[in-house]
Order: sequence, then C-alpha cells, then structure tokens
Amino acid sequence: LRGYEEFIHHSVTLREGPEAACARMGFRVRTPEDVDRAARYFDELGCRTQRVAAGTTPGFGEAVRAIDPLGFTIELVHEIEHVEPLVQRYDLRRGASINRLDHINIATPDVPVAFDYYSKLGFGLSETIEDFDEKKLYAAWMFRKQTVHDVAFTLGSGPMIHHIAFAVPESHNIFSLCDTIGALDLQASVIERGPGRHGVSNAFYLYILFHDAPTTEIYTTDYFTGDPGHQPIRWDVHDERRRDFWGNAVVPSWYLAASGLLDLDGHPTPVHDQPVTERTVTVGADGLG
Amino acid sequence: LRGYEEFIHHSVTLREGPEAACARMGFRVRTPEDVDRAARYFDELGCRTQRVAAGTTPGFGEAVRAIDPLGFTIELVHEIEHVEPLVQRYDLRRGASINRLDHINIATPDVPVAFDYYSKLGFGLSETIEDFDEKKLYAAWMFRKQTVHDVAFTLGSGPMIHHIAFAVPESHNIFSLCDTIGALDLQASVIERGPGRHGVSNAFYLYILFHDAPTTEIYTTDYFTGDPGHQPIRWDVHDERRRDFWGNAVVPSWYLAASGLLDLDGHPTPVHDQPVTERTVTVGADGLG
Amino acid sequence: LRGYEEFIHHSVTLREGPEAACARMGFRVRTPEDVDRAARYFDELGCRTQRVAAGTTPGFGEAVRAIDPLGFTIELVHEIEHVEPLVQRYDLRRGASINRLDHINIATPDVPVAFDYYSKLGFGLSETIEDFDEKKLYAAWMFRKQTVHDVAFTLGSGPMIHHIAFAVPESHNIFSLCDTIGALDLQASVIERGPGRHGVSNAFYLYILFHDAPTTEIYTTDYFTGDPGHQPIRWDVHDERRRDFWGNAVVPSWYLAASGLLDLDGHPTPVHDQPVTERTVTVGADGLG
Amino acid sequence: LRGYEEFIHHSVTLREGPEAACARMGFRVRTPEDVDRAARYFDELGCRTQRVAAGTTPGFGEAVRAIDPLGFTIELVHEIEHVEPLVQRYDLRRGASINRLDHINIATPDVPVAFDYYSKLGFGLSETIEDFDEKKLYAAWMFRKQTVHDVAFTLGSGPMIHHIAFAVPESHNIFSLCDTIGALDLQASVIERGPGRHGVSNAFYLYILFHDAPTTEIYTTDYFTGDPGHQPIRWDVHDERRRDFWGNAVVPSWYLAASGLLDLDGHPTPVHDQPVTERTVTVGADGLG
Repeated sequence: LRGYEEFIHHSVTLREGPEAACARMGFRVRTPEDVDRAARYFDELGCRTQRVAAGTTPGFGEAVRAIDPLGFTIELVHEIEHVEPLVQRYDLRRGASINRLDHINIATPDVPVAFDYYSKLGFGLSETIEDFDEKKLYAAWMFRKQTVHDVAFTLGSGPMIHHIAFAVPESHNIFSLCDTIGALDLQASVIERGPGRHGVSNAFYLYILFHDAPTTEIYTTDYFTGDPGHQPIRWDVHDERRRDFWGNAVVPSWYLAASGLLDLDGHPTPVHDQPVTERTVTVGADGLG
Repeated sequence: LRGYEEFIHHSVTLREGPEAACARMGFRVRTPEDVDRAARYFDELGCRTQRVAAGTTPGFGEAVRAIDPLGFTIELVHEIEHVEPLVQRYDLRRGASINRLDHINIATPDVPVAFDYYSKLGFGLSETIEDFDEKKLYAAWMFRKQTVHDVAFTLGSGPMIHHIAFAVPESHNIFSLCDTIGALDLQASVIERGPGRHGVSNAFYLYILFHDAPTTEIYTTDYFTGDPGHQPIRWDVHDERRRDFWGNAVVPSWYLAASGLLDLDGHPTPVHDQPVTERTVTVGADGLG
Repeated sequence: LRGYEEFIHHSVTLREGPEAACARMGFRVRTPEDVDRAARYFDELGCRTQRVAAGTTPGFGEAVRAIDPLGFTIELVHEIEHVEPLVQRYDLRRGASINRLDHINIATPDVPVAFDYYSKLGFGLSETIEDFDEKKLYAAWMFRKQTVHDVAFTLGSGPMIHHIAFAVPESHNIFSLCDTIGALDLQASVIERGPGRHGVSNAFYLYILFHDAPTTEIYTTDYFTGDPGHQPIRWDVHDERRRDFWGNAVVPSWYLAASGLLDLDGHPTPVHDQPVTERTVTVGADGLG
Repeated sequence: LRGYEEFIHHSVTLREGPEAACARMGFRVRTPEDVDRAARYFDELGCRTQRVAAGTTPGFGEAVRAIDPLGFTIELVHEIEHVEPLVQRYDLRRGASINRLDHINIATPDVPVAFDYYSKLGFGLSETIEDFDEKKLYAAWMFRKQTVHDVAFTLGSGPMIHHIAFAVPESHNIFSLCDTIGALDLQASVIERGPGRHGVSNAFYLYILFHDAPTTEIYTTDYFTGDPGHQPIRWDVHDERRRDFWGNAVVPSWYLAASGLLDLDGHPTPVHDQPVTERTVTVGADGLG
C-alpha cells in the first residue's frame, strides 16, 4: 500500500499472520553505502542484526534489519523500486485521500532513553510533554523530515506501536471519511477518537481501528520544522489541550491499545511493563498525542 | 444581536437579570393582521395573553405574548425594523461567521403533546426519535422554514430551553471557532460537545456554553425540506448515530442542562419533572439532537 | 437523475434526440387539485395546454403542460413517485456530491415582462441587476423555495435556458470536482467558468459543459430568503462584482451559450432575438449570474 | 513581517523607497561558520560581496551579501533573533492566516544557467516546464526544504522577481481572503489571478497585488519532496494544465509584471532582456507557474 504522493513501491505492507503484530518499522537511508554503515553501527552497539537480500521485501533492495537498543525491530534500506506518483490523479483518489505515511507513535517504558537514542541518530525534537515540577519526560515528538515528527515516543508498556499515521491534504478529507464510516454504520467499531485538533503537533486528527491493524491516525496541517534552530514546544502534562486542543476527552481504550512487535525470527518481542502504580497515574495523564 | 444574513433589528436579545432564564421565544407572523389573529387564537385556547405596544421590544412593532398550551412563553410579531443585511460584508465577519438564528430546542415532559400542538400550527415534521417496539416518541424536529427545523422537542423536564442554534456557512467556520476557543484556553468551559455530525438533521454541530446563556449550537449543512410531501426520517432510539453520526459519546452535562423560562410577569415558569425513574433510562438514551 | 437529498423519482431526465434542446421545465404544485387549477389558469390566459396521463413521464402522476405567456414550455405535476433519500449515504456519494436541483436560469428578450408574470405567480424577488440611470432591468432572481432563486431571468435572445444549477453541500465539493476534471484532462472542454463566488446570490459556483446538455452550474452557500418582508438586493449593472465577487472576467462563450426549447409537439420553440446593437452593449454587460 | 509559524524575527521587510524594487533575497545557512564559507565561495566565483555587521538588518546577526552569478542580490545569514511562534494563536490569526514565506519565483533570461547554478548549491529539482521537441527548458522549480520549491526560475527578462509566495493552512483560507477583498471592493486592483489549482506544484493559489510590492502568491497543499531519489515531474510546455489545472486562462498582466532588484549599493540592477521575438512566443506560452 502507498499514498497518492508516494513514488516508492509501498510504504505499508499488510500480511496475514497468527497474531496481530508489527513485524518491523523501516527507514530509508540516503545512499546504498548507508545500508552497510547502518549494519556496522548496530553491530558496534551489540544489537542483533540481519542482512536481507534484495527482493526479500517486494520492491526493496538489499537491507539490514536490527533489534535496536530500545528493543524495536527496524529495517534500513536505500533502494526501493519507483512507481508513478498519483498526486494529481484526483480521478483515482478515494476515501480520505491518503497522501503518505507520516509518522509512527511508539510506546516505550523509558521515554528519556528513547529520546537520547534518536537524538544521536540525528532526529530533531519538535515537542515534548513533561512534568516540569517532577522533571519527568512523558512524551517526545522527533523528526527527520521537516514536519512535526517521523516518530513519537510516549510512556507505556513497550516497545509497542501505539499508532501509525497517514497524511491527507485538508481537514475536510478527514470529515468526509467520518461521514463515510457513519454511512456504513461502522462508527462504533472503526472510529476510536476524534476528529479533533491536537495541541501537540497542531494537526487535525482522527484515530480509526480496523481488524487487527495497529490504531491508524489520519492527520493533516501540522507545521514546518526545517528551519535551523527550530525550538521544541514543551507542554505541561497538566495542560489538557496537549491531546485535544478543543478539550474533548480521550477515550480510555486509546491509552491501552498498542500493538506488539515481532523480532527478527518472527516471534513476539517481549514487552517491558510500565509499572502499574505509575501507569495508573501517568498513562491516564500521559502524553500520547 | 443578529446574524450577517438577517435584515431585521435583532434575532436575539441578552439582558442582565437576577437569574439565568429565557424570557420568551418569538415568531414572526406573515401579516399585521396575524398578530390579532394570534391573540384570538390563544384567547380561545384559554391561554393567558398579553398585548404589548410597538417599541416594547426595541425594533419590534405591536406584538402579542402568550403562555402557550405547553406552558412556554412566546411572542408573535409582524413588524420589525429593517436593517441592512451583511451577507457579503466578509470584511466585518468575525468568529464563526453566524448567518442567522436557525432553531430552538425545547425540553418537554410530553413530546407527543408538543408534536400535536405544533402540527396544528402548521409545522412540518422532518425527523423523529422513537422506540418502535414501545411506540414511544422521544423527540421530534419540526419546521416552518424549509430546513430541518425551527423547533425541536425532546423528552425532559420542562418546559425548558435545551439549546438555541445558529447557522454558519460551512463546516470550516465551526472548526475555526473551536481553534479560537482553544487558543484562548477556554475549551474546558466553553466547548460542551462536538464538533461532529448529527445523525438527526445531518448537520455539522458544536455546542458551546458561555456565562448564563442557554447552551448554544453552531450548525451547518442540514437539508431542504420544502418539497410537497416531504417524508420524515424516523430514527430508532437505539441507533447511536442519531446523536452523533461518527459515534462520539454525548457528555452527561448535555443531557441535564436546560434553561428555565420566565412567564408574562417575568417570574420563573414552573417546570414539570420528567419522572426520574424514566429519565434514568430515557434521558440517557433520549433524542436530544 | 436526482440529487442525494431528493426523495422524488427524478429531478432531471436526459433523453437522446435529433438536436440539443430542453423539452420543458417542471414545477410541482402543492395539491392534486392544483393541476386542474393550473390547466384552467393557462386556458384563461389563452395559452396552449396539454393534459398528460400519469406515467407519461416515468414516475410522475397526471400533469398539465403549457406554453406559458413567455413562450416557455412548462409542466405542472403534483404526484411524483417517492424514493428513499440518500442524504446520509456518504458511502454512495460521488463526484461533486449533488444534493438537489437548485434553479434554472432563463434567457429572455424582455426581463420586465418575465418578472411581472412570475411575480403574479407568487414568486418573490431576491436580487436584480439594473441600470439605475436608464431605469432598465437586466436580470431578476426569483424564488418560491426560501433560497435566492428557483428561476432567474436574464436579458438575451429567448426564451432559452441559459443554465441549470445543482446544489452541493460545501465549497470544497466544487473544488474537488474541478480537480477530478483536471485529472481527466477534460478541463478545456468541461469547465466553462469558475470556480468563484457570485456577487448576485453570494453562491460559490462553477459552470460546466458536457455533451449537448445545457450549461450546468454547481452551486452552494447562497442565503435564506424566507423571512416575511425579505428585501431584494439591487445591483448596479456597472458593478463588476455582481457576476464574480472576486473580479474574475466572464468568458465570452458564457454570454452566448443558451439552449433552445421544444414546444408541446416536440418542435423547436421560436427564439425572439434580443436586438444585436443592444446586445453588443448589454449582453457583454448584462446580468447573467 | 512574519508568518504565524515562523519563530524568527521576520521573513519579509517592507521599506519605503524612491522606486519599487527588491533589495535582496535572503537564505539562512545552517551554522555561523557557513557565513564565512559563503563569503569565500562568492569571492572565488569572482562575485562582488559585502560583509554586514550584526544588526544591520534588524534582528539579524553578521551576514554576507553578494551579487550571485545570475546577477541576483542575495544575503546569507545564520543568526536571527528568535521570537515566539504563533502557530496555535488562532485568536490572533487574521486575513489569510499566513503561516510562512514559502518561495520566491525569479524571472531570468537563461533558465538552464540558473538551474545549473542552484543545482550546484545543493537544491533539488521538483518540476520543470520544457519543450521536449526543441529540448528547451522554460522553467524549473527547485527546493532545499522538503516542499516543491524555495525558488523557481522562469523564462523572462531578468534577473527580476516574478512573485513571492506565502503558505497558508488550507484552501478555505484562500477563498476567505478573496471574499474579504471583494467585500472591500478591492478585487479589481488586488486580485490578479486565481484562485485555482496549479498543475505545477499541485498547490491552491491566489495572486494578489498591493501598492508597489512584488506580486504576492497565497499558496497551500503542494507535496512532500524529501524522500531520497525524489523524481522531478516534467511538464510539456504545451500542456495547458501546468499553469492552471482547471484550465482557467492566465491574465496577460501576470506575464509582464516582475519587480526589479537593487544592487549592493542600492542602485537598480540591470535587466537583461529576453529577446522580444522569442518572448512573444514563449512568454505567452512559458512556464511561470
């Protein structure tokens, strides 16, 4: 599957399996040599890695897979088969008019560690949720592309995927999707949260559920972060607007649902619990956004 | 106050008083003679009436006020001072770009009685919420103008005003209003419910609260009801989409909040309770929309 | 064909014929008896009439057809087969999401005569284009339903149909249609004028052409005209905003294109020319809007 | 002046002067050292340069100005005073809700030379307009940030600025601006072209004129270009959709209007004519988009 803007073979693959899980998250590296560089990098960190031949993932060239220091299964690849982008094929656009994969939101029991690791990888920080009194970091939004994020880390049992988000052109595309879901009488099972505007990221959003896929966010109108010296916006964990700028409550299921991962052998990745006593306080008040 | 489309002196008056209440709801009649006709009509029904001289309400001509058979205080007037409409004064439009007063939603302990009474007045029926098994009418949307409603009746202690609604041009006007409210950090106190799309009426909606005014709905994109033989849409009280087509839960406060009325002497109108045992079941599942 | 809001058998019928023409324009009357009343009315005016049995037009009951005093072929009917409205079947909506037939714009060589005739039929006047110095009426927008118009009359050779307009929910539906037309590389032949906002009527509009059909307008966000005492807006023929509030020029073809009519026998209706010398001045500056 | 998203002191400065001209176009460099590096780079190219002390431009640190090989006056700076971004200050947003400076469109008599020079500076190519038969490059859109462009080059007498563009959140912001301009009866002098959708860049656009400022474009919804291996879209100069995807004609003034530059001493920069015979053919058919 790919968005209308995307000119690569795919950005998401859905496969049937014995249980619902995310096999891995991929990043493209800028050059063919960066694949080798990535392999050496993870070897040096003592991470388990796996080289995969071109074509192992359809449309992808040679790649390296690894269990990163956060326990997350990732894949790095440079060569991807190109296909024709369909940006202006408005005659073909359907549904919410998905333009592209925008970001992945990861639940992790230790947000500062995730933040440090991704900072070293060269990711910028756009927004945080923090308890300023307790000096505690609840969530961090981090970017390589010049938008609010490619990955976000939020406090929770993990490593797990909280949601995967897709960008659409304008807010009316999101409302049209809601209308279609309602017309099909699927709103109770498919619409989890929203639509609304996030405080964090400024985006219009909608969270939807279908079958066993991770929670999916439909997303638009965040902002540009590519200027040198971009300063992160730091939200107080007590500011209710961080999650929904219009003050709508977050449904409880949204805090609890996250999808597990598979390791390099296709077995479930162990999940480290976020301690329950703390979660009672903090997950209910955390920064998933 | 008036909307940008309205060319009459005002459609809403806010006055400071000892308690929050709605003094009366007004309708325009088509001819000057209709004011007399209305007075006779209410006299014949045994309703208490009161003639008021031109100018009693600023900008209004001679009028008749009455306590209607539902116990609701109303005013009928024909002559209203004209002012310039501002439909295309986009340079002056602010906030949600309110075009006009659209409808009033009335809580009443006996919806069938209200429905019968307004049917006899010549109002059409656009939608209902019913329990088809129990043959019970929970709510009715009724119109004179060719939209979904001018008044709606919903089961609850009454006669009270549940909310008053204003029409805006397009859905983005509603979202812009939400954004402004969030920017002012007023979302917790001002945004009560929404935005969303109603099942009943098909409208985009937002309910807002400010100070002591009745709940205010901002509303757009319902549909045309003026064709002869227009058929009402009958919703099952168990269809959750009737209230929010996208499946979002209704906040509890929304069911409980309604504003009392004043009688012809400016005293509070007595409220007939909707029996609590029934309300427990039905108000939580009623048709306020 | 019908719009998603419409619950009648159809609002438009397209039939293949030897030449492009409009067979007739129909109005629904409020009661079955009004059909007879209409027949008598036209008989008394000396107009040629024709009774047609139920089913002559598929889905329609007994009707009367007439050549009205303007030379226009019309049909009046009350009974029309009902079908399920699809207002909220967002899963089925396609293209511009047409809600309903909104109005018909008629070219006529004598606008004051058309205005007088329709005024007597009970149509209200919402807007005009006039030369105030020369006291000349160039165009008139007239309504039965509570919007800006059901019919408009504009100066030109006639009686002819200038365009037929359909209402859609919001402006983004119009822009989406433009995008789809562009994606199909049909913009040169299909998009005639717009999108833009009309000064007259305040509507967002787009004029499209396809095959031999009359010019078709896609239309949204005009305003409510149902309040008693609604005052017409009178535009100066020299105010360029009347046609396009954003100042975009009107393409020449738009002034010249109008579709002929068929009479009660299916023969072309004679067209009375608007004198050429005057048209040079006035059609270029007329009020087609 | 700055957009609501921008956190730097300003992105545009308007100064009164003896004639309408653009003093210079600025780029931020990533590090303080890059200012020196830029100075050396232009010295080595034999370009005239000028160091300016911090504060010469209010809010800016030390900078270097140069006449680049295209004859264009530019400024490179790293340090800029930070201010609070106003992304979510929806209570303050006015007019078209300008988020940020998006790009500058430069008229030049030799597009291939401009393309080569900016390619060497590290700019990517997103789109072109070409005559494939004559192998002629009419226009090129080039980016550093991950959108369609930061600069575009189009064939014309130059070096001159054709227009400067600002990004807004959504298309309805553009239409609202048009409505406000119409309401002020300024459409004839202020709205030059649009609104519409560009073929090149996919953006919704509006071109406006005010006072002596260069043509200003209001712009939204182009697409992401940051993926490695992004492939340019090459438009045929004969495809009318390149300029307006909906087929609307470009007003003649739009081809002729461009603003001159000032050199390092504040004197007008000489303009090299694009030969008239060719311009007759090509400017009317060129790629300004």
